[in-house]
Amino acid sequence: MSHSLLILSRHASDYERLVSTAALPDLSITSTTDAAQLSPAAMRCDLVFGEPSLIAPALSKLPAAQWIQSTWAGVEPLLNPSLRRDYVLTNARGVFGGLMSEYVFGYMLAHERLIFAKHHAQRAGKWDPTPPGTLKGKQIGLLGVGTIGAAIARTAKHFGMRVKGYTRASESSIDVDEYYHNDKIRFADGLDYVVCIMPNTAGTKHLVDRALLDALPARAVFINPGRGSSVDETALAAALSEGRLAAAVLDVFQTEPLPADHPFWRLSNVVITSHTAALSAPPDIAPLFVENYRRLIAGQPLRYRVDFDAGY
Amino acid sequence: MSHSLLILSRHASDYERLVSTAALPDLSITSTTDAAQLSPAAMRCDLVFGEPSLIAPALSKLPAAQWIQSTWAGVEPLLNPSLRRDYVLTNARGVFGGLMSEYVFGYMLAHERLIFAKHHAQRAGKWDPTPPGTLKGKQIGLLGVGTIGAAIARTAKHFGMRVKGYTRASESSIDVDEYYHNDKIRFADGLDYVVCIMPNTAGTKHLVDRALLDALPARAVFINPGRGSSVDETALAAALSEGRLAAAVLDVFQTEPLPADHPFWRLSNVVITSHTAALSAPPDIAPLFVENYRRLIAGQPLRYRVDFDAGY
Repeated sequence: MSHSLLILSRHASDYERLVSTAALPDLSITSTTDAAQLSPAAMRCDLVFGEPSLIAPALSKLPAAQWIQSTWAGVEPLLNPSLRRDYVLTNARGVFGGLMSEYVFGYMLAHERLIFAKHHAQRAGKWDPTPPGTLKGKQIGLLGVGTIGAAIARTAKHFGMRVKGYTRASESSIDVDEYYHNDKIRFADGLDYVVCIMPNTAGTKHLVDRALLDALPARAVFINPGRGSSVDETALAAALSEGRLAAAVLDVFQTEPLPADHPFWRLSNVVITSHTAALSAPPDIAPLFVENYRRLIAGQPLRYRVDFDAGY
Repeated sequence: MSHSLLILSRHASDYERLVSTAALPDLSITSTTDAAQLSPAAMRCDLVFGEPSLIAPALSKLPAAQWIQSTWAGVEPLLNPSLRRDYVLTNARGVFGGLMSEYVFGYMLAHERLIFAKHHAQRAGKWDPTPPGTLKGKQIGLLGVGTIGAAIARTAKHFGMRVKGYTRASESSIDVDEYYHNDKIRFADGLDYVVCIMPNTAGTKHLVDRALLDALPARAVFINPGRGSSVDETALAAALSEGRLAAAVLDVFQTEPLPADHPFWRLSNVVITSHTAALSAPPDIAPLFVENYRRLIAGQPLRYRVDFDAGY
């Protein structure tokens, strides 16, 4: 049986080159960056590979699609209840741990080493001998410990930190010193850093709320490279402006791009990174499609299948 | 036989408390922050523990000193040829690797993640989706691979980097992929980052010169948390201002504090961190004295003994 693949991505030509290089058997490939201009051949494809934001609006024109591989970890656009769910959806997993670790530790080290304060002192021509801090011995809490959380936990141990993990039930990372499943207040106690890497689901909505923020020490830094929906932004902005929380490093927001009148823009203890923490890089993502295609034609279950009800 | 210890340090009371806590046998302790006001008891001490900058000017008033433990790694003030060398000098080693790693990776991640550019975009109210880079797959070169270099090499491997090491002869770190001993030009080839952690000796003076800088790719970043004497600052400033080198992160300088008219202050691709990369912290340093004192009274050779001729 032969298959036809539609690549629908901002990086369509990169993905077409990478998938072609794998010389997959019985596969024809069509690729485009433009979901609004699908060719008749594209509309007959049984496989789709690309960004959920481009695929979702085209889904009604892709009746033959049986399997969709997302280039992203988050698949929210395809979870819209008005869209059909009679196909296999797989997402990108296991490839963002390294980049997420670089993001989290880049900004944690920036905080400890007073990188911004020293930058401004230098611009003022000032020799600034203020002693920096260290990650060693500090305590980090991970809201969510999947493959990304496990990568962050491993880096935290490398730097001599203590690691607390908050999960629904899983306790799979050996680098987490202590797991919590229900009591987010006890989880928050004594943390120097808390990192939110929860998917966007009903169960994670506003998990980071006034109660959790109040349970954190005032010295704590909140870091969110996960999903904006996990955070009660009004409660977070209040904690930051009232000094009940030292700082926040935010990559994701309830609304993106962050609206110009949002209070986060006016808080000096907020870092805004514009949803760039872990961008999908075609050389990292293409192998996920290649591996899953080989499993498909071998009759094996696909990896990283999304449960539409759970949302991840 | 009993011993008397003079603690001569900016952190005299911290060190006195930490050493006293160890309840070392047959040891009396005197401590002061002021080398100019030594008591008669202080001048009779046979052991001295403190900063080389404070001990060197007092050395002529400490005729009984048989062993001096430095709180620093660098002991330059005590290497002045006019000073006596008829005692055992030990320095602080093996305790700075973690802090140096945090410094180096803090600024390397800041470079990859465009932390300063994104900071300025945010202050201008701009949503900046510029994709950051990654350390993974990049190449780092270490000028000097002692305990500090080995710690940096281990962190580099954690982040998926390739590691080149330049040493006189040693090849002790297993995290270095390739060693170079004489050919600094081949060492420099293809490096994304080069980190200088050489001690201040005759052999390392201006090791980083025009020839080495020219052999680096223009994308390279030079990081110096070692000693200012290793660098030809005129050649470095020229390479940075002419774009032959992407950036420099400098903690140490030929003259410190860095003079107000130094060209480094005017270069936008230089980070100046005012000799704060790895400050001696009493809780980390005191155990070195305690361990060596126990070795002394047990008749064992002291650890971390400095060779006055080699300079480290």
